[in-house]
Amino acid sequence: MFYIIGIGLGDVKDITVRGLEIVRKAERVYLESYTSILAEDKLQLEQFYERPLIEADRELVEQDADQILDKSNEVDIVLLVVGDPFGATTHADILLRAHNLKIETRVIHNASIMNAIGCCGLQLYHFGETVSIPFWTDVWKPSSFINKINQNKSNGLHTLCLLDIQVKEPTWESITKKKKEYQPSRYMEVKQAVSQLLDIIKNNEFEGKNYVTQESLCVGAARIGWPDQKIVAGTLTEMANVDLGSPLHSLVIVGTLHPLEEQFLKQFYI
Amino acid sequence: MFYIIGIGLGDVKDITVRGLEIVRKAERVYLESYTSILAEDKLQLEQFYERPLIEADRELVEQDADQILDKSNEVDIVLLVVGDPFGATTHADILLRAHNLKIETRVIHNASIMNAIGCCGLQLYHFGETVSIPFWTDVWKPSSFINKINQNKSNGLHTLCLLDIQVKEPTWESITKKKKEYQPSRYMEVKQAVSQLLDIIKNNEFEGKNYVTQESLCVGAARIGWPDQKIVAGTLTEMANVDLGSPLHSLVIVGTLHPLEEQFLKQFYI
Repeated sequence: MFYIIGIGLGDVKDITVRGLEIVRKAERVYLESYTSILAEDKLQLEQFYERPLIEADRELVEQDADQILDKSNEVDIVLLVVGDPFGATTHADILLRAHNLKIETRVIHNASIMNAIGCCGLQLYHFGETVSIPFWTDVWKPSSFINKINQNKSNGLHTLCLLDIQVKEPTWESITKKKKEYQPSRYMEVKQAVSQLLDIIKNNEFEGKNYVTQESLCVGAARIGWPDQKIVAGTLTEMANVDLGSPLHSLVIVGTLHPLEEQFLKQFYI
Repeated sequence: MFYIIGIGLGDVKDITVRGLEIVRKAERVYLESYTSILAEDKLQLEQFYERPLIEADRELVEQDADQILDKSNEVDIVLLVVGDPFGATTHADILLRAHNLKIETRVIHNASIMNAIGCCGLQLYHFGETVSIPFWTDVWKPSSFINKINQNKSNGLHTLCLLDIQVKEPTWESITKKKKEYQPSRYMEVKQAVSQLLDIIKNNEFEGKNYVTQESLCVGAARIGWPDQKIVAGTLTEMANVDLGSPLHSLVIVGTLHPLEEQFLKQFYI
């Protein structure tokens, strides 16, 4: 059997009891290490799970999936992913590969930012399409996500913005080489995402009518589910100066507030 | 400390390791029993948690929250909810009440249908606003959710439809009496939701342009996260005749399929 097990939001004890039982009995246990922040905590996980973990980087999961799946028709193989297994497309990919190889699969779900963001008091069913905000470079400054935020906002809906993570990305110089060298990990902060958004608004880089202004209400969320999680609500201009501390950060652009949402959000105002 | 702990999708072992530790040490542990399907399995949960559970029905959580919160400034009190604590507004309510009483609170997240639905292969960030489909009666047949589905579909987005649950609802006759009598629990099935939708389409009960037809692709999902989970994809007409077995059921009206989504969904076609 091939298992993909979500390990939740960050703490080693966020795995479910059932997930832990499977991990402790499996033949091989891989830890997906490139869409998440837990990469640095492998040792801590190994101690708690009482199992050695094999690091699974993007190349292994996306290009050598068969290596992970090897013998999973006979023994139990586990791939651990931070959050829920269906947070990232690459995990659907490996499940599909297993399905095509007639390997039995099983998914153990867990919390992910996609549902845990509800802790800021905004109702999950008032969210529209989720967007991703990528790191800008000197020559690449994508802005099309503003159109989705505008569309959600015009319908009164909140927008969850997932902020860019770059973990174990090969350097440009080594990308074609056999021996890869890696860039240091980077995690986008809320204030950086907000400052990119403010630039987009300033430069009018959107299609149709714009609903997002400097005064739009947004929520910055850091380390959701961790003991030191931090949630702050304020205008985009205010948020551009808020330091939310260590990663991971997420941002919500607020749509139309319902009374209970407004009441709940008040406790987080700057 | 007042804890709200999500216990996940249904299996007793779906609680996180951290959640279980807190449950085992808490002074009083309540089990929210009216937005979920676990109500019948209280005994099984008590055996696994090694703790007696106090049933918390809608009246207790919504009207007598202070009774639950009593002494949580001195000792640890837990409210267990199926799925994630932020699935239903009433849990935001009790957290707000605690906040106003200056009681420290902590949320332990878990999977909920809002993120676990990703297991059908449709990407979570391609979902628009979530809708709820209520049971129709002879005289009350609300249909306005079709407008949200249309809006999502016109933007290429999928719609998660949460299907009505009626657990521990007082009978109409006893609603004003002190001693309540309760209706038997009811859980809407996918085929029932689909047949209501087909009625709405037939009767043209929508505003503006309609994007949902008898031939629209949808996904029926039953018992997500359970060992016997079942996912079926087909047109609305096809789905009206599919029996997905025991509750809980959810329905997705598919928007525009991306290639990987299409490939993944194929394994579930009727």
